Amino acid sequence: MMKRYAIITAGGTGTRMGADKPKQLLELDGKPVLRWTMELFQRLVEPVELIVVMNEGIREEWKAYCRVAQFRMRHRLVTGGITRFHSVKNGLQHVEEGALVAVHDAVRPFATVELIEAAYQMAALQGSAIPYVDVVDSLRSRKPDCEGRLLTEPVDRSLFMGIQTPQVFRSTWLKEAYQRPYQTSFTDDASVMEAAGHALSFLPGSRFNIKLTTPEDWQLAQLFIHR
Amino acid sequence: MMKRYAIITAGGTGTRMGADKPKQLLELDGKPVLRWTMELFQRLVEPVELIVVMNEGIREEWKAYCRVAQFRMRHRLVTGGITRFHSVKNGLQHVEEGALVAVHDAVRPFATVELIEAAYQMAALQGSAIPYVDVVDSLRSRKPDCEGRLLTEPVDRSLFMGIQTPQVFRSTWLKEAYQRPYQTSFTDDASVMEAAGHALSFLPGSRFNIKLTTPEDWQLAQLFIHR
Repeated sequence: MMKRYAIITAGGTGTRMGADKPKQLLELDGKPVLRWTMELFQRLVEPVELIVVMNEGIREEWKAYCRVAQFRMRHRLVTGGITRFHSVKNGLQHVEEGALVAVHDAVRPFATVELIEAAYQMAALQGSAIPYVDVVDSLRSRKPDCEGRLLTEPVDRSLFMGIQTPQVFRSTWLKEAYQRPYQTSFTDDASVMEAAGHALSFLPGSRFNIKLTTPEDWQLAQLFIHR
Repeated sequence: MMKRYAIITAGGTGTRMGADKPKQLLELDGKPVLRWTMELFQRLVEPVELIVVMNEGIREEWKAYCRVAQFRMRHRLVTGGITRFHSVKNGLQHVEEGALVAVHDAVRPFATVELIEAAYQMAALQGSAIPYVDVVDSLRSRKPDCEGRLLTEPVDRSLFMGIQTPQVFRSTWLKEAYQRPYQTSFTDDASVMEAAGHALSFLPGSRFNIKLTTPEDWQLAQLFIHR
């Protein structure tokens, strides 16, 4: 059994949610989203070493919450970087080689224990595990023309897939991949691994595993939490 | 005030849901999905003439339901074609020129009255109204290589939008657009309108307005219906 880590990226400032604090600290049914997400990993049978990457600006608020709520789940707090790439890279400094490491968005509290377990197992065998969902809506590309008008055109949705987290990797490979210089195309860990020459393995994600982004997502979250 | 129509496309056979009947006839909290969807349009302040496009194979089952449940909402039943394009085209034969026509998936019962009303109003002013949502998950393109292996690569999600229904149009324009020969790229009515040279207008859709497609969508529907 390979040692298991999870890097929870909790760096975002969450301005799109329209709330007064970053969305990973908003309370859902009495608990911050980040706590719901951390507790997911606690429910796995095998122990997971948790690394929470967070900007300095909200660190004190989180610590205060843990103190007041007597939330004592063990985790290492690591300071976030200027992009998601730099944040994960900071987190990886605390991950051993020869292990498995999941990278998961703090604002995806509805990943399931089954999905996370399946992803660790797939990564142990194949080196990576990336959850995906088929695109169900029609899809259009969009870009502004030179005068700023929006140009859109239909694209074949079957040629695309939605990519979720947790993304799980052999830590040796991910740490090595993160030694490469930053590129703006690095929107997730899969893209970093791929740029380093590694093949990716995919597994089915879940439509419940939403990334809490907009006020409407927050309404969805209220329904999901009482499921 | 322009006369309002809605073409409800209820043609699909719904095999992905894994159920014994097409998903538009599956009962959600005691009513078929199609009925939930039709009742959405009934809740608008302005009257809407409903045209339900359905394959012959399920027509009798639907009629039997209406009889037994004493569901008497007025609607015209039109026979579906071999593709969505042909089904909508059949429906459009019963739509007058100079009106507004919405085209809506029967399996999107969670569109809101507000969204539908806003779409009719936008189409009255601008000729079309297409609901969209931003893509929140990371996005990858995928295609098999010549040996059948899956090739994927990251794409910039901000350059894409998810397209929903109801899509609303000036009926004169849509009827004319549907005179063109069928193309496989016609996955929705927006693409047909665009091929006929019309500019498209977009309005924000809703993350609740899901297209019931998979068994997991059915679980989401159970939550949404009791919202």
